[in-house]
Amino acid sequence: MTSLALRMKESPIGVFDSGVGGLTVVKSLRRRLPNEQIIYLGDTARLPYGTRSPATVERYAIQTASFLESLNIKMLVIACNTASAVAHGTLRAMYPSMPTLGVIQPGAKQAVRASKSGRIGVIGTEATVSSGAYAKAIAGFNPSAEVVSQACPLFVALAEEGWAEHEAATRLIADRYLEPFRGGRVDTLVLGCTHYPILRDVIADVVGPDVVLIDSGDAVAEEAAILLAASEQLRTSLEPCEDQFFVTDAAGRFRRVAELFLGAALERFETVEL
Amino acid sequence: MTSLALRMKESPIGVFDSGVGGLTVVKSLRRRLPNEQIIYLGDTARLPYGTRSPATVERYAIQTASFLESLNIKMLVIACNTASAVAHGTLRAMYPSMPTLGVIQPGAKQAVRASKSGRIGVIGTEATVSSGAYAKAIAGFNPSAEVVSQACPLFVALAEEGWAEHEAATRLIADRYLEPFRGGRVDTLVLGCTHYPILRDVIADVVGPDVVLIDSGDAVAEEAAILLAASEQLRTSLEPCEDQFFVTDAAGRFRRVAELFLGAALERFETVEL
Repeated sequence: MTSLALRMKESPIGVFDSGVGGLTVVKSLRRRLPNEQIIYLGDTARLPYGTRSPATVERYAIQTASFLESLNIKMLVIACNTASAVAHGTLRAMYPSMPTLGVIQPGAKQAVRASKSGRIGVIGTEATVSSGAYAKAIAGFNPSAEVVSQACPLFVALAEEGWAEHEAATRLIADRYLEPFRGGRVDTLVLGCTHYPILRDVIADVVGPDVVLIDSGDAVAEEAAILLAASEQLRTSLEPCEDQFFVTDAAGRFRRVAELFLGAALERFETVEL
Repeated sequence: MTSLALRMKESPIGVFDSGVGGLTVVKSLRRRLPNEQIIYLGDTARLPYGTRSPATVERYAIQTASFLESLNIKMLVIACNTASAVAHGTLRAMYPSMPTLGVIQPGAKQAVRASKSGRIGVIGTEATVSSGAYAKAIAGFNPSAEVVSQACPLFVALAEEGWAEHEAATRLIADRYLEPFRGGRVDTLVLGCTHYPILRDVIADVVGPDVVLIDSGDAVAEEAAILLAASEQLRTSLEPCEDQFFVTDAAGRFRRVAELFLGAALERFETVEL
């Protein structure tokens, strides 16, 4: 093994999102790959990506990915559904030798595997739902699957408020948004926004025990683990390593909400300009 | 009167916000000044301003104001609480000969006038509340006023969803956010975010008939009318004129939500790059 290949094993995984949402993906990666180092970039100066045009999101994704790539990462995870839908192909073409994962393909694949009836629900932001990206990805794995989608715009604000539990309003809003998935109409539901794992318990409660919830963060972490193992790129050093977090603006607000999403305090944390 | 002064009377009023919220201010301006022409810029490519740092918001405000100024406006209205709090002074200094109004001073002034007890409530985004801009402005008009503030982050999403009426969740969320203003603790409440007039009925219902609601949009429209009249700059032509709307991104989404905020269809509507 060359020294370059050895060095690459020790390199971090780069993860980006428009804000705090992608921290639920970091949480999944930490759970599945506890020995890896992660560098996270939250492009808070330009969030949310979900209401931007595709051309704008692609431009932002290229800038954020370039920043992470300059830090010598061995893998890129697009922890943002909008950027995954719009810019995954472009980023893969820009960095042909670096594995680049979005959240949509792994989430769609796990949903198709989990569904017995082939009737799959997808919830996400307005942008993700209207892009049809999950429906397309699911069709790629099972052309006869039926996909029912629902945008849940209030879920992002509810998650950032930390109003997940014991909050009657959250339950009422979930009741309303998740109506299309009740009564056996789907057997699998994709949490197609990185904020939604924060509301997982209330979502599970509303759709009931017969609907399997697919967390795209868990799905991409599984995919990352498989890829790194197959290419012998898993970090082997037993030295502990600290993750590193960057934002492009409003660091105070990010830090406040971050602990809720990550389930832990931020370690090294800086603001950068892209 | 010179031909320049004549031409200026016929010039439009420029209004900007980060997105659709400022359209409630346009609605107020249309009601108060129906003969004026309005040019609106929604900086949707970079919304929301409310989670950005002050330096970033100032930079954006300068760019949006410059765009409007290049269209030969006679008055600039900053229809965004965050930009008013952060950039009003800078914009006034940039354009010393053009009247430049923010929403905070007029809202604070009307609140002080309306309040008998001197106990005034303010609701707004996290950024507006934590800036303390209303509290400072209110203290400028009445140093002994007591100000109680509450951030209501979910109200923006509720307004954009159009979940104002007949929605139990909206009522529960309002009950929770507005708790500090009930039971006679304030006699006046400032709607310190341009989205909130959409939720006016439910807010009024929760705080009760003894609390006067101050709509900053109405307050700035009143101020604009007084200023234009005093400087003999009211439009006198009886030719009908069409308002004009610009956004910097995601025009489709803007148009969809816009009618709800404006209470009318958009007339001339374009996307521009700043």
